[in-house]
Amino acid sequence: MNEKKLIENLKDNQYQHPTVKLGIGDDMAVINSHPQELLVSADTLLDGVHFDRISASPEQISYKAIAVNLSDMAAMGGKPESILVCVSFPKSIETEWLSSFIKGLKKHAKYFRIQIIGGDTTSWNGPLAISVTILGRTHRNGFITRSGAQAGDLIYVTGPLGGSLESGHHLNFKPRLQLAEKLMDCCKPSAMIDISDGLASDLQHICDASYCGAELIKQAIPINKNLSQQCSDDSIYRAMTDGEDFELCFTIESSKAKQLENLNFNLYQIGRMTSKTKAMIWSDGTKINFSGYEHKFGMTAPE
Amino acid sequence: MNEKKLIENLKDNQYQHPTVKLGIGDDMAVINSHPQELLVSADTLLDGVHFDRISASPEQISYKAIAVNLSDMAAMGGKPESILVCVSFPKSIETEWLSSFIKGLKKHAKYFRIQIIGGDTTSWNGPLAISVTILGRTHRNGFITRSGAQAGDLIYVTGPLGGSLESGHHLNFKPRLQLAEKLMDCCKPSAMIDISDGLASDLQHICDASYCGAELIKQAIPINKNLSQQCSDDSIYRAMTDGEDFELCFTIESSKAKQLENLNFNLYQIGRMTSKTKAMIWSDGTKINFSGYEHKFGMTAPE
Repeated sequence: MNEKKLIENLKDNQYQHPTVKLGIGDDMAVINSHPQELLVSADTLLDGVHFDRISASPEQISYKAIAVNLSDMAAMGGKPESILVCVSFPKSIETEWLSSFIKGLKKHAKYFRIQIIGGDTTSWNGPLAISVTILGRTHRNGFITRSGAQAGDLIYVTGPLGGSLESGHHLNFKPRLQLAEKLMDCCKPSAMIDISDGLASDLQHICDASYCGAELIKQAIPINKNLSQQCSDDSIYRAMTDGEDFELCFTIESSKAKQLENLNFNLYQIGRMTSKTKAMIWSDGTKINFSGYEHKFGMTAPE
Repeated sequence: MNEKKLIENLKDNQYQHPTVKLGIGDDMAVINSHPQELLVSADTLLDGVHFDRISASPEQISYKAIAVNLSDMAAMGGKPESILVCVSFPKSIETEWLSSFIKGLKKHAKYFRIQIIGGDTTSWNGPLAISVTILGRTHRNGFITRSGAQAGDLIYVTGPLGGSLESGHHLNFKPRLQLAEKLMDCCKPSAMIDISDGLASDLQHICDASYCGAELIKQAIPINKNLSQQCSDDSIYRAMTDGEDFELCFTIESSKAKQLENLNFNLYQIGRMTSKTKAMIWSDGTKINFSGYEHKFGMTAPE
């Protein structure tokens, strides 16, 4: 199967987004002008780092490639519209694998109502590498950065944390787009991030960008039930640092907390922002002293 | 050097484009709304396929990664604004190499007045892989696809072809942005493409998309002077199929040909479009029967 055939397969019968004027097949795609600002980001998934091509199916890998980008979109409170997919295949790859991968991309794009508008396919002597760029629009009420949190704001996460790699959650998680939209509609958070590197590390980004600190209640951290010893120091450590949860962590003015109850989503209040710049502590005053797995080379989660 | 440090290096003191509301450092970048349509595409460059990390410098590789995307922008008649850069490094890479690569990216982005607004950096056990997404705007007179050529339109190329890989042209070519802008200002082409896979293959794309044929004058094909035997069948073959020239091939109504003379750019009229759908012939009536190097896996040029 050559590139022309692959691109034809991608174009054929795929979801069409109304903002796309010209999709796959020319030198570039053309997107209609639009009164809302455009959101854009890109994430790479690599064999042996973000997935294992032996144990994960092409369908799962295509899902994750799209979902990690949708998680970024949720973290900005935005609405996705289109993606570009760059895939570098090992030369030895089976046509069947490629065909399932492309079928998966189209299926998941259709499910999330995003159009595949471009990209690149190449074979080489390296392992499978996938880079996806996502485009979308800001909500009519704006967008959420990491830098808007204020001392006194409450801190929430949107689901239990930890153990994502063992449980397979990282291959089938639901990006929190609907929840993010509800938040934007009713009670805009002051800061938001998706949890890809572990809560400890990602909440630190909010603290750093907002020039605030955070005080967390250890007992309030929601721990994934597949982690054997609930509430042990080990399971707290795992929940705070494992990464690839793809839940949202957001901060919100305490006066808006009542409104969150009407949202009909599970939300976990885990603490509050403080004025102690960049310092993260437990509610007993002790320092939170693990820092998630940093993006050292070879140990990285898509942001 | 970890990812945080790398991203700080990228952010620091780089070119700022006025359309960018929020650049690198959050979950996504935010681009201001704009009355012109948005152009977007992505290209991957791989070690051993599009460059050789032993013989090419980090500065050259960062240049090519940007320039191949600018060549697509020129082919649409558009104006570049910003890029996202996803880089997957081998774990063994030297800090010095990375630092030069990032310095190169920033320098070239500044030269072309584009802002680096996002991306991803990861290390892995594979070779160096770079995916760049480019964003820009259409010209006030619209954009040029591959599909607008009509029988009778004249065919032009913007420079000599062939031998790009040996001569190093593929690492230091000038994307034809200024020429494309002049064309858009004065005498909009009916179809345009950048020559990445070889003229034979890329002009075929125009023929296919426009439901036309092409008739070329063999003696008019501009051949790169580094190809030893000028005008031999072999050098014609090389000029038609080598690829990675990154010149533009465009078609234009014959009534506009006079206006092209005022442009002060070297342009080479090489033939005309015909009504014989998808058929490419020489002016003596013989079929043009080589098809460039197709994007078979492992033999690919960025589009």
